Amino acid sequence: MNYKDWVHGELEGLSMAHGFRYTPREEIEDRLARLRAGMEKKGMEAFLVVQKMDYYYLSGTTQDGLLFVPLDGKPLLMVKREVERARVESPLDDIVSMKSIRDLPSMIRDHWGRLPKTLGIELDVLPVNEYFRYRALFPGIKLMDASPIIRDIRKIKTPFEIDLIKAAGDIGRKVLLEAKEFLKEGMTEIEFGGLLEASAKKYGHEGLLRVRSLNYEAYTWHVLSGLSGGIVSQSDSPMGGLGLSPAFPVGASLKVMGAHEPILVDFGTCYHGYQADETRMFSIGGMKEKFINAFNACREIHDAVLAETRPGADCEAIFLMTLDLAGKLGYGDSYLGPPGLQTRFVGHGIGLELNEFPFIAQGQAYPLEEGMTFAVEPKIVFPGEGSVGIENTVVVTKDGCEILTPVEQDIFEV
Amino acid sequence: MNYKDWVHGELEGLSMAHGFRYTPREEIEDRLARLRAGMEKKGMEAFLVVQKMDYYYLSGTTQDGLLFVPLDGKPLLMVKREVERARVESPLDDIVSMKSIRDLPSMIRDHWGRLPKTLGIELDVLPVNEYFRYRALFPGIKLMDASPIIRDIRKIKTPFEIDLIKAAGDIGRKVLLEAKEFLKEGMTEIEFGGLLEASAKKYGHEGLLRVRSLNYEAYTWHVLSGLSGGIVSQSDSPMGGLGLSPAFPVGASLKVMGAHEPILVDFGTCYHGYQADETRMFSIGGMKEKFINAFNACREIHDAVLAETRPGADCEAIFLMTLDLAGKLGYGDSYLGPPGLQTRFVGHGIGLELNEFPFIAQGQAYPLEEGMTFAVEPKIVFPGEGSVGIENTVVVTKDGCEILTPVEQDIFEV
Repeated sequence: MNYKDWVHGELEGLSMAHGFRYTPREEIEDRLARLRAGMEKKGMEAFLVVQKMDYYYLSGTTQDGLLFVPLDGKPLLMVKREVERARVESPLDDIVSMKSIRDLPSMIRDHWGRLPKTLGIELDVLPVNEYFRYRALFPGIKLMDASPIIRDIRKIKTPFEIDLIKAAGDIGRKVLLEAKEFLKEGMTEIEFGGLLEASAKKYGHEGLLRVRSLNYEAYTWHVLSGLSGGIVSQSDSPMGGLGLSPAFPVGASLKVMGAHEPILVDFGTCYHGYQADETRMFSIGGMKEKFINAFNACREIHDAVLAETRPGADCEAIFLMTLDLAGKLGYGDSYLGPPGLQTRFVGHGIGLELNEFPFIAQGQAYPLEEGMTFAVEPKIVFPGEGSVGIENTVVVTKDGCEILTPVEQDIFEV
Repeated sequence: MNYKDWVHGELEGLSMAHGFRYTPREEIEDRLARLRAGMEKKGMEAFLVVQKMDYYYLSGTTQDGLLFVPLDGKPLLMVKREVERARVESPLDDIVSMKSIRDLPSMIRDHWGRLPKTLGIELDVLPVNEYFRYRALFPGIKLMDASPIIRDIRKIKTPFEIDLIKAAGDIGRKVLLEAKEFLKEGMTEIEFGGLLEASAKKYGHEGLLRVRSLNYEAYTWHVLSGLSGGIVSQSDSPMGGLGLSPAFPVGASLKVMGAHEPILVDFGTCYHGYQADETRMFSIGGMKEKFINAFNACREIHDAVLAETRPGADCEAIFLMTLDLAGKLGYGDSYLGPPGLQTRFVGHGIGLELNEFPFIAQGQAYPLEEGMTFAVEPKIVFPGEGSVGIENTVVVTKDGCEILTPVEQDIFEV
């Protein structure tokens, strides 16, 4: 059978029958309009989109390639491998096959009539050697950093995007409820972590959590029991856990989970690229009062953040308010990590990546806006003993916020 | 409890009791000696290691930071967050805390007495904005690309590394044997993929497979049944599968697996950062003769590659030999993908990353060397019907090769 015919005859129906939701044309057009407003302000004549999630956001497909977006005129999607599938997935009109990156200038000329004088690329993630290659391909053209523009428009989510994050949150809800059934005394952290992940995949979780960074890796098996929860590690997180080796010294380990230990489960789910992040406490039999009290303090801080969350509220002010409250509640030395290793954020924007704007953090003095989505995660760490916390993903609404991960907020005791 | 005291009193014992193997000092010294030989040849006075796996390879830790390696003198490990844990994990002598990247020049001066005139960095992965930052920190210093040197030394594995890959292969063996028990008719591909991953984690698999690339993502739930196996997608692989959405259009999908379909499971495992990659065919009840014959052809091609594998054999010549053999066996139009979309490699180097040297591929005219490890994966694709294949990870020995993923090579029929 001819592969191209098969794709055009069968792939769309097959994928829709198996849960695919394609990005509508109006959605892409709205995003492109906001992008162009940002480009115009910066004097950027065109944008060459190189990073997978930016490319997905603006085209609706992740088929490997490059997206050229001129300020005036239609975008051109140039696909390296599977152009037919890209045509099924993306509502853009101009989708062509690209044999070699050397053809890029002539492809742009053919499509747009000329080359731009200023060209944006995401210089926050583009590797240097690739940058040199683009410089050689476009002599005399000014290459500019387009990452502030694309990150800025991506920080406000549309109803279509919020729906997908809600669907991710719904996967998390099913997993956490199911987890009450399969968590057993004597299991290792990583065994429990693997079962959580397997449960989530069954409901359509995509497995990978994406981060905009060279070295920072996200994962879903952040299961820390008892003293594992008191261990700090590489990531900018209140606690890292023991992990499995020096190559992966974070998250679940081969430690056996005992009765009455606080078991912290920080679990992200991903649906159509959109992530929801949440943390719940588990215990096998009740946990010690010290941990219950600290958990209640985390809930109080969490609720205080949500009470302040509305358009116009300042992100840094919210963070500083939580420091104050943690101190008043008696957790000044254990809130967000042990002394000397306390992190300086209680929330992070979330969407296609885990580190989007806004950050509810020190030094982040800007207002919340309607349509922003972020995860709020107050945590308290006791070295050598354990840690507790709670986390939900929320969207900023017209006059407050809505929780997108609304499963049972209390401790899951089995 | 004081966190620093806890780490130095407890962490090493706790981690060793839970399966950690730290990189021995002699191993790091041997790697550094080979690195310096490469640096000297290129006229590189010092190397600032920025990428996580390069950093782990040369230091034994992945605690976030930077590693400065001068041609003459001791390396300096500068850790951003958890310096105490880095001191437990790394055998290097000089491990210090780094508050801000702005302190880098003064920290190097304090340690080494001066700044280098030429400084290597991995420009194949370093983002442009970070490069500009280093240029501003080190005015007048020539920044060079160190990636060819580090990739070159990493391509030859030591016995310590081969042992870790073997251990990863042993996790894969346990998983595939267990999979025979939990594979059931009516399961979706992704449900099976999740259970494979959960099984692997239970045995210590680290979950993430690492790739040296901006956009290329590796994952372990590449479970393709029947017509899913005939779908090409974004990655440079003979078949991509349907996947779960346009944001993750590869690997396992929500398609239900039926009896008698070819079920291709391409499964990578990771132990202490070292990966083993393998592919096996499963079926629920016997599969059609067409697929069995194609599978046998893949085995024949696989065995022919192994018969040629020894120090001195040319990588491109081996690849071209497989094209020839596939044609003779009647699979010229389906070997490594459908016509027009056939990939041009049958093997890829593997270790800490999935895309290391050597590549058994077109255009890769260089000899195999003792200690190289690679995955060999002949596959045959029938659009609209399915695909078959086999894959093993091997190490080049003194006069041939050894399979590091030696579980049952035949079809797993349940």
